[in-house]
Amino acid sequence: MPFRFFYILFIFCALPLIAQNSHLKVNQNRLEQRIFDLAKFGLQSNGETERVAFSNADVEARNWVIQILQEQGLEVSIDFAGNIIGLRKGENKNARPISFGSHIDRVPNGGNYDGCVGSMAALEIIEILNEHKIKTKHPLEVIIFSNEEGGVMGSRAMSGHLGKGAFKVVNSTGFSMGEGIMRLGGDTTRIAEVVREENSMAAFLELHIEQGGILEKEKTAIGIVEGIVGLKWWDVVFTGFANHAGTTPMNSRQDALLAAAQFVIAVNEITNSFEGAQVGTVGRIKAEPGAPNVIPGRVVASLEIRDLSAEVIQKVYHAITDKAEEIAKTSQVTIEFIPLDTTADPALTAPEIQKEIELATSKLGLSHKYMPSGAGHDAQDMATIAPTGMIFVPSKGGISHSPKEFTSAEDMANGANVLLQTILALDEKLD
Amino acid sequence: MPFRFFYILFIFCALPLIAQNSHLKVNQNRLEQRIFDLAKFGLQSNGETERVAFSNADVEARNWVIQILQEQGLEVSIDFAGNIIGLRKGENKNARPISFGSHIDRVPNGGNYDGCVGSMAALEIIEILNEHKIKTKHPLEVIIFSNEEGGVMGSRAMSGHLGKGAFKVVNSTGFSMGEGIMRLGGDTTRIAEVVREENSMAAFLELHIEQGGILEKEKTAIGIVEGIVGLKWWDVVFTGFANHAGTTPMNSRQDALLAAAQFVIAVNEITNSFEGAQVGTVGRIKAEPGAPNVIPGRVVASLEIRDLSAEVIQKVYHAITDKAEEIAKTSQVTIEFIPLDTTADPALTAPEIQKEIELATSKLGLSHKYMPSGAGHDAQDMATIAPTGMIFVPSKGGISHSPKEFTSAEDMANGANVLLQTILALDEKLD
Repeated sequence: MPFRFFYILFIFCALPLIAQNSHLKVNQNRLEQRIFDLAKFGLQSNGETERVAFSNADVEARNWVIQILQEQGLEVSIDFAGNIIGLRKGENKNARPISFGSHIDRVPNGGNYDGCVGSMAALEIIEILNEHKIKTKHPLEVIIFSNEEGGVMGSRAMSGHLGKGAFKVVNSTGFSMGEGIMRLGGDTTRIAEVVREENSMAAFLELHIEQGGILEKEKTAIGIVEGIVGLKWWDVVFTGFANHAGTTPMNSRQDALLAAAQFVIAVNEITNSFEGAQVGTVGRIKAEPGAPNVIPGRVVASLEIRDLSAEVIQKVYHAITDKAEEIAKTSQVTIEFIPLDTTADPALTAPEIQKEIELATSKLGLSHKYMPSGAGHDAQDMATIAPTGMIFVPSKGGISHSPKEFTSAEDMANGANVLLQTILALDEKLD
Repeated sequence: MPFRFFYILFIFCALPLIAQNSHLKVNQNRLEQRIFDLAKFGLQSNGETERVAFSNADVEARNWVIQILQEQGLEVSIDFAGNIIGLRKGENKNARPISFGSHIDRVPNGGNYDGCVGSMAALEIIEILNEHKIKTKHPLEVIIFSNEEGGVMGSRAMSGHLGKGAFKVVNSTGFSMGEGIMRLGGDTTRIAEVVREENSMAAFLELHIEQGGILEKEKTAIGIVEGIVGLKWWDVVFTGFANHAGTTPMNSRQDALLAAAQFVIAVNEITNSFEGAQVGTVGRIKAEPGAPNVIPGRVVASLEIRDLSAEVIQKVYHAITDKAEEIAKTSQVTIEFIPLDTTADPALTAPEIQKEIELATSKLGLSHKYMPSGAGHDAQDMATIAPTGMIFVPSKGGISHSPKEFTSAEDMANGANVLLQTILALDEKLD
């Protein structure tokens, strides 16, 4: 058939479809109801939900999700890392999938929205597309990642970053990660087969609650995530001299805690002194011997720095070590920085997908803000193998990892609609 | 007999004796040898000594002391609180005893001098008096107090300050104080009988190593203790808001550890800002939840203030609480002070005994310095029931409660000679 025939066919058939699809919206009530239904898996007598990865509640909730995906006609499988994969065929058999999803496992005593909003939105998008009999060129792939909260396990496996050492880590259920993978229907001996080739997906998208309270404070509907910040951890060891707090005069002390206190303040001041969204935190501190009547001779504190740019992390770190040298000199306390191996590199999202998300928000008449994600997400590892986009919706008071987590039905629907429209736009534009 | 006869008898008999006694000195080598011998009780394979109260080593060392006291002709008993009492008769049967001594129990991993110097000096003084056949008007009472390190147990019992609640406290031997009292030959049901009436002793004297390094630094032979400082303890609770360290911007934090760090510095600055020898210490700190990636929502820190004057303690405390109010306002972290019941009131020594100690040092050609004792001692409780004096000798580097404790034989002998001369002078001057 000549090219022109196709072109005319497209004009007559596809354009009205695109126009129609651009007004397509998710079912807000159904989406919120799914969040409530999901919260029942692991429901405790106090009204809170416990659903740590590998728990019975996790397994039951996963089966419930699998059932919905099957009812929606998707081809459902569990990969060797325990990720749930639901595939909706595309019209173009050679097209790479457009993938999207999140996770449904939770931290101990966590909330009903972290991970769940992106997962339930993925289900809702499939259902609304089915209801409207909308076909896509690309296969659509719903991914419910396994054990996100215990170290982004499923996405790490998929991106080839899950070391075998991680299998030994035991979470609060008592199962090791290796045992947990088996329990979810995976296979630890075949983890390598889970790894996706770079660019084997057309795109990866994740919708998630924003966990910092910025969107809520600024009354903005949609966060367009520029990237997931990298983080570095150190143990900072202060060595002074432990001595009798009664007999050692104030001017004869080598008080490790006094030096550590100056350090804690310096971390805050230095992190604030640079422009940008970098954060620096001392979250853990231990003074030894740790008695009210003994001058601390040794203090170990943690230092965490996060930013979208590895260079900024280094810049803040060097300013902090410079200041630490000063503190050490004036306090006669030595200060040593021990890097910890919990480093995560910054992961940037794809600018062309950011642009599509922005277009979708505009089309939907929603306000938006470009922002980094301070928290880690499955999208962080996916960004290393696929052009990735991430959409944030407001979370009340920025509270997360807490039963007090809350996102309104409207905010969730806004995010799901942006995700839906972005998927449809990418389906048109991508090969 | 007419008064004049006594007077003449005194001139002819006593004066030459006093003159002779004023040149009497302890046997320095024997004193140091006793320190070394005592260190053998509880000797470990690494060369250090473990002799916590109630341990087998403690019991054996006490038996060794009892044997020496008996060999020196003293009437030895163990009171119901486990204190070893060695009585050397005086010529005046109605005279109250001049009492002196210290303790031989040690902290875990402690040193060979804390308590031991005063105890071995007491033995040496008895022996040198015996050797020179010197009789005193007053009975001399050597007291080796039980379980000083575990809460000045023996002296508290003797001064009527040992509550029965203390009996439950278990030390590192695994014995409770109640069990320990029985083990040392005491009787918990008869503790009340141990209490000495106020002024039933003519005086109480204790020789001890100085634990702050001041005498060594200032090359001074003798510290004349003005009193044992009082101390107050508080738990200081900082309540902010725990939040995700990655997602919470620097300007949206209520970081309890940042406020606590400002507090630690304020305690140091404020304590230094007043003239005097007061000390203020934050020795214990705990941040919750205590993870590198969570902003601390709660911190509990200890505050200890010590001084010879209860008013000064209050003054420093109020300056600290005023500053804490400021910190709370600027940091949006609440700060609460919870008084702990480990309060000890300042205990002043008797000025007339301080004077006698000074006279003795001058007579012996030794340098001296008036100073407070920052550490607690048995003398602290004894000061509440008897005119009390306390003599310090230098301790190398001010190190104590450590195997590195060291006091030279000369310094120990200086202290013992001052103690001896003070006893002899008081024996003459007191009723």
